[in-house]
Amino acid sequence: MIIGKIIGSVWATRKETTLTGAKFLIVQKETIENTKVLYNSDILVAVDQIGAGKGDRVLVTSGSSAVSINPDKNLPIDAAIVGIIDSLDL
Amino acid sequence: MIIGKIIGSVWATRKETTLTGAKFLIVQKETIENTKVLYNSDILVAVDQIGAGKGDRVLVTSGSSAVSINPDKNLPIDAAIVGIIDSLDL
Amino acid sequence: MIIGKIIGSVWATRKETTLTGAKFLIVQKETIENTKVLYNSDILVAVDQIGAGKGDRVLVTSGSSAVSINPDKNLPIDAAIVGIIDSLDL
Amino acid sequence: MIIGKIIGSVWATRKETTLTGAKFLIVQKETIENTKVLYNSDILVAVDQIGAGKGDRVLVTSGSSAVSINPDKNLPIDAAIVGIIDSLDL
Amino acid sequence: MIIGKIIGSVWATRKETTLTGAKFLIVQKETIENTKVLYNSDILVAVDQIGAGKGDRVLVTSGSSAVSINPDKNLPIDAAIVGIIDSLDL
Repeated sequence: MIIGKIIGSVWATRKETTLTGAKFLIVQKETIENTKVLYNSDILVAVDQIGAGKGDRVLVTSGSSAVSINPDKNLPIDAAIVGIIDSLDL
Repeated sequence: MIIGKIIGSVWATRKETTLTGAKFLIVQKETIENTKVLYNSDILVAVDQIGAGKGDRVLVTSGSSAVSINPDKNLPIDAAIVGIIDSLDL
Repeated sequence: MIIGKIIGSVWATRKETTLTGAKFLIVQKETIENTKVLYNSDILVAVDQIGAGKGDRVLVTSGSSAVSINPDKNLPIDAAIVGIIDSLDL
Repeated sequence: MIIGKIIGSVWATRKETTLTGAKFLIVQKETIENTKVLYNSDILVAVDQIGAGKGDRVLVTSGSSAVSINPDKNLPIDAAIVGIIDSLDL
Repeated sequence: MIIGKIIGSVWATRKETTLTGAKFLIVQKETIENTKVLYNSDILVAVDQIGAGKGDRVLVTSGSSAVSINPDKNLPIDAAIVGIIDSLDL
């Protein structure tokens, strides 16, 4: 998983029908250098089902594993927010 | 998912037979720095089933999750356009 | 999918038995900047079943989706040539 | 798999329910140049089930293969610690 | 698949139980520029079942496709050596 901060959201009316109702958040990736958190310009869009919002630091799962957040549907997604981070212990 | 802009399309007569009729669009990736959208030279080719066209800003799902846009076929694709973006809220 | 040019092939006598008879082509990745095609030193090896050859510009599917070019076997491959490109419309 | 060193852990109370009880460790990636191990600022978060701890050098499996560390659940994870490294023979 | 050279191996006593007996080799990635092979500092660890050894140039499959080298087990691996390269035709 990667660590990132939610910086916004995406509005898309026309989309794959299985994605109706999905909430798309924009996540800026973080990296860590000598226990210091750094941001870079890498962003990704992740689906959220756990109530994350702008400014939250989150755990994001990428790739086809992200589909497992909704095992009943076979969502065409490659990133999902799977946790809202309380703290990092470095 | 990544955000990108459609800049063209690919024409390929000879292809895997399961891809007959597939529409291949060229997407230029976007990144975001301080709420400003930047383009770089990274491109990818994505299959489209939702009617996207040149100039559209789109959401692209990469990896094997892209296959889910057509669950009846087992398409050998690794990228699909899953949404046409109306706006970004940053 | 990525766009690339076939620049050679790989000969490997000892291999996983499910790969017996597989044709391994070396693909140089392309990127596009201002409608101009650029090559870089990134290469990958892809399995071909559609008759591509040296010099062809091709569409390559990466990741586990590549396995779908032969649904009867469970090939341990992560890249397949899925189309031979006639032209790009940019 | 990649080689990395555990430099910390992540605490996330709100998460996907299938991840309840999961242990999230922060791994700094290593690379090797002329038999010398180098660290860079690339980090990832991996789930651990084998008892790894801070300072351990570990083997990390990325992507949907990581899900196999718990075949009974369909965990939404993309990285897992699969081995604690005793030594590298270079 | 990528092309690489085996430069060493990994010894890990404590690991996921499904990996007992697995052979972990360290592969240095190669790239090709103007028919010249270049090495860089990118390495990965791949499981080997075909008898590759130090100094061999190999074909490596990455991602969840690597699991297919042992279809009876559901190995948590993301890289496997699938061929030992005799020669490149460039």
